[in-house]
Amino acid sequence: MEKLRLKRLSIDTYKENVAYLNSRCKFYRAAGFQALSKIKITADHHMILAVLNVVDDDSIVAPGELGLSQQAFTQLGLPEGTAVVVDHPEPPVSMDAVRRKISGDRLGYRDFKAITRDIIENRYSKMEMAAFLVACAETGLERQEILYYTRAMADSGQRLDWHEPIVADKHCIGGIPGNRTSMLVVPIVAAHGMLIPKTSSRAITSPAGTADTMEVLAEVNLEPERLYEIVRKVRGCLAWGGTSRLAPVDDILITVERPLGIDATGQMVASILSKKLAAGSTHLLLDIPLGPTAKVRHMQQALGLRKIFEYVGDRIGIHLEAVITDGRQPIGRGVGPVLEVRDILQVLENRPDAPGDLRHKALNLAGRILEFDPEVRGGTGYHIAEEILASGRALAKMEAIIKAQGEKRPKIRPGRLTFEVKANSDGWVCGIDNFQINRIARLAGAPLDKGAGVDLFKKLGDRVEKGEPIYRIHAEFEADFKFSVNLAEKHNGYTIGGKEDIPPNPEEF
Amino acid sequence: MEKLRLKRLSIDTYKENVAYLNSRCKFYRAAGFQALSKIKITADHHMILAVLNVVDDDSIVAPGELGLSQQAFTQLGLPEGTAVVVDHPEPPVSMDAVRRKISGDRLGYRDFKAITRDIIENRYSKMEMAAFLVACAETGLERQEILYYTRAMADSGQRLDWHEPIVADKHCIGGIPGNRTSMLVVPIVAAHGMLIPKTSSRAITSPAGTADTMEVLAEVNLEPERLYEIVRKVRGCLAWGGTSRLAPVDDILITVERPLGIDATGQMVASILSKKLAAGSTHLLLDIPLGPTAKVRHMQQALGLRKIFEYVGDRIGIHLEAVITDGRQPIGRGVGPVLEVRDILQVLENRPDAPGDLRHKALNLAGRILEFDPEVRGGTGYHIAEEILASGRALAKMEAIIKAQGEKRPKIRPGRLTFEVKANSDGWVCGIDNFQINRIARLAGAPLDKGAGVDLFKKLGDRVEKGEPIYRIHAEFEADFKFSVNLAEKHNGYTIGGKEDIPPNPEEF
Repeated sequence: MEKLRLKRLSIDTYKENVAYLNSRCKFYRAAGFQALSKIKITADHHMILAVLNVVDDDSIVAPGELGLSQQAFTQLGLPEGTAVVVDHPEPPVSMDAVRRKISGDRLGYRDFKAITRDIIENRYSKMEMAAFLVACAETGLERQEILYYTRAMADSGQRLDWHEPIVADKHCIGGIPGNRTSMLVVPIVAAHGMLIPKTSSRAITSPAGTADTMEVLAEVNLEPERLYEIVRKVRGCLAWGGTSRLAPVDDILITVERPLGIDATGQMVASILSKKLAAGSTHLLLDIPLGPTAKVRHMQQALGLRKIFEYVGDRIGIHLEAVITDGRQPIGRGVGPVLEVRDILQVLENRPDAPGDLRHKALNLAGRILEFDPEVRGGTGYHIAEEILASGRALAKMEAIIKAQGEKRPKIRPGRLTFEVKANSDGWVCGIDNFQINRIARLAGAPLDKGAGVDLFKKLGDRVEKGEPIYRIHAEFEADFKFSVNLAEKHNGYTIGGKEDIPPNPEEF
Repeated sequence: MEKLRLKRLSIDTYKENVAYLNSRCKFYRAAGFQALSKIKITADHHMILAVLNVVDDDSIVAPGELGLSQQAFTQLGLPEGTAVVVDHPEPPVSMDAVRRKISGDRLGYRDFKAITRDIIENRYSKMEMAAFLVACAETGLERQEILYYTRAMADSGQRLDWHEPIVADKHCIGGIPGNRTSMLVVPIVAAHGMLIPKTSSRAITSPAGTADTMEVLAEVNLEPERLYEIVRKVRGCLAWGGTSRLAPVDDILITVERPLGIDATGQMVASILSKKLAAGSTHLLLDIPLGPTAKVRHMQQALGLRKIFEYVGDRIGIHLEAVITDGRQPIGRGVGPVLEVRDILQVLENRPDAPGDLRHKALNLAGRILEFDPEVRGGTGYHIAEEILASGRALAKMEAIIKAQGEKRPKIRPGRLTFEVKANSDGWVCGIDNFQINRIARLAGAPLDKGAGVDLFKKLGDRVEKGEPIYRIHAEFEADFKFSVNLAEKHNGYTIGGKEDIPPNPEEF
């Protein structure tokens, strides 16, 4: 097989490997490749797959050379000039299983294992990942399939063992702007002495995930060895799950889920529980917000979801409790990394202006986790959590975690471009559309621009006058700012009505 | 808004538009773009969407320049050096409908119209198209949705009107190797004087479509005006539907369907009937092959599919008849463009060695179409067709069609690399796996390499001795040849058994 000289091209193709061949290259013609077909590149037992682009310009890639984008070059891990062999890749065998799923079959553990392996080995194009995600989203996965998928995902990466009887964790299924309780729960629980090594995803469709917000204060990209040391030392962490090689397939799929904006039950349950399993969690508290614009809109749906979590949790050996919480509106005031950090610090510092709903919810969740401790009497968790917060021990613990992970000296400054959105009429706030607030904050640039987002002045049940500011948009860049303000001016997400229209709190602790 | 200087890069990115910005470009930083995000490029009322790659090498793209791949440059249609504006594109609004479909909703005409428009305007990434295709494949579309989708697809392009009472057409749902009856039916029907302007797709997952095979003999990429003239003159054509701007969305979706290997009922029905509607067909004969390795494997399924076709056909005003045919094995001997052309010419030339099954099936289908003519007595179509073929009028008509479309002076030569596959045991051929023969022929390089494919020596019911050749693989290129032979050696697709194991013919004309 003819060999080509490796060349690094300074082209950034994000998570996709791209290779470049000259159209007059003998090899390209002989092998019958087509632009955009996938090719396999090998040398010295190194192998990558890449999408082929064909180039006519010798100054980019000459005949006899193989150009690689930055990502592909790094992944292959060989110096420029290395003689490489290019070949047709074996097609991803597991796409057969995806096609079976599309035509309505149930998949087994081996299918999910094969799919996750092929995805990690970069054999799937984004198009193929989209096919897999939608296939699993649409008719949904049965709970048995979710169990198999969870195991396959957990088996796809490293796995931690903490050698402790209780390794606590919490997770929210998402959808509620500003709902950053983890950054309060972790320091409270760790201050009690319980182990809580929390890893989070970045935002998929929301303006911030816990990893995005924590990143304002501290390094969140931690290698597993580093993470292990930190947790041993301070009893907790708030890290990004991605770079820690735990259930890595999820972090690849997110690059497709995010732009598609799909978020399906089976994928969600498997993604959450596989991370927890890989992270060595033994006890998990799950937050399922319920409300008219939450992900879960009816009590029956919430109870059904809880059952699926319990089913899979029991079978993978995680003690799991799911609480259904008030998801009628955003939590706290800030939506977007920097604005959320401000709220969290207000609560940790016991400031009188701290948002009460964020504080109350965090104490509730932390309390439930503390009750995983056999020494804590049922029903007393909330008060223990409150004592830890009020005494300043939670703040001290948070500072210790930040220091351990690597403190950032941030300019904690909301985006400099601002716009105040005003009430359209007099009355009471009787609806805040979580989706719309998320969309406005995302368009403003969150989570990529840390200071971008939305700062809420009014919450459910508040009295407003027509023309009174209800929230402020923050953005860093002109184009984003314009888009966000335009959207808010079309639909600001607030419903103003009579006092009797305020929906009741569905909370059930 | 800052402007960038347009630059053409000699990079071939197939059907995807790619744009290149220098990472030190002020504009890139200010707008907060990310590699692989979609950007909108405008100047002088020209607009395209492209995927962004970020480049560090000034010799490829300097700060202040915007590089475009060949395709993107051509599509924008402006000279190098033009000042262009780059902006965030409006997200494709119709993805909301796709997400609704994923969560189980039925879609209406407006949804399908919006989706097809956004796809044609290049607003969908391949990933998003994959999501749409799988969403429609999995739970399937209801027949009402298929009707809406068909109309939306037909409305997305040009539409022909032939101003004749009968505009005949035929179509096969595919899946059967070597089934090139159109290239016999069209000359027979046109020789009778009936108008039959046949347009076909290229192969999606098979080793050849009619357009791929016809391309061996004649030009098939015909502009609508050209096609119109040709049909007016010779009463028929065998053209590729793609470049003729009829229902163009289908040709874009095929670039995703093909690599994914998905082929769903709703997509198929809408794709076929929208093309027919756009092509101005009034009468359509539909071929539904039935067999253990055909697309349709049970009579009930075949009847169900026929009903869907009839439902949509009636509502869009096409007189449609569907026949269920023998799909137990490949038709004729050759599989792959050049080999199929050989079989077809043998039939047209009334050669005694012509494959009988191909001849018989073509006469049956042509006969049914001739009976659309009110002057043809029911039941006499087959004999009229046979007379047209035997008299040489069909051959003369085929030559006229080839000449009108633009004759190719081909080297009609099967691929030079050959390998003979031998029977594993003594007995009777009682199964030929259509899928496996297709796969082997595709791996050999068909349809891109015209001479590649499979040449069958034995058919169902034939007696074979162990070691006797059952078919020959032809390929043009070493790598393809190796893959194809390997697959055939693993599973050659033939079942040899007792005489009593030969499955009965399901044919029902």
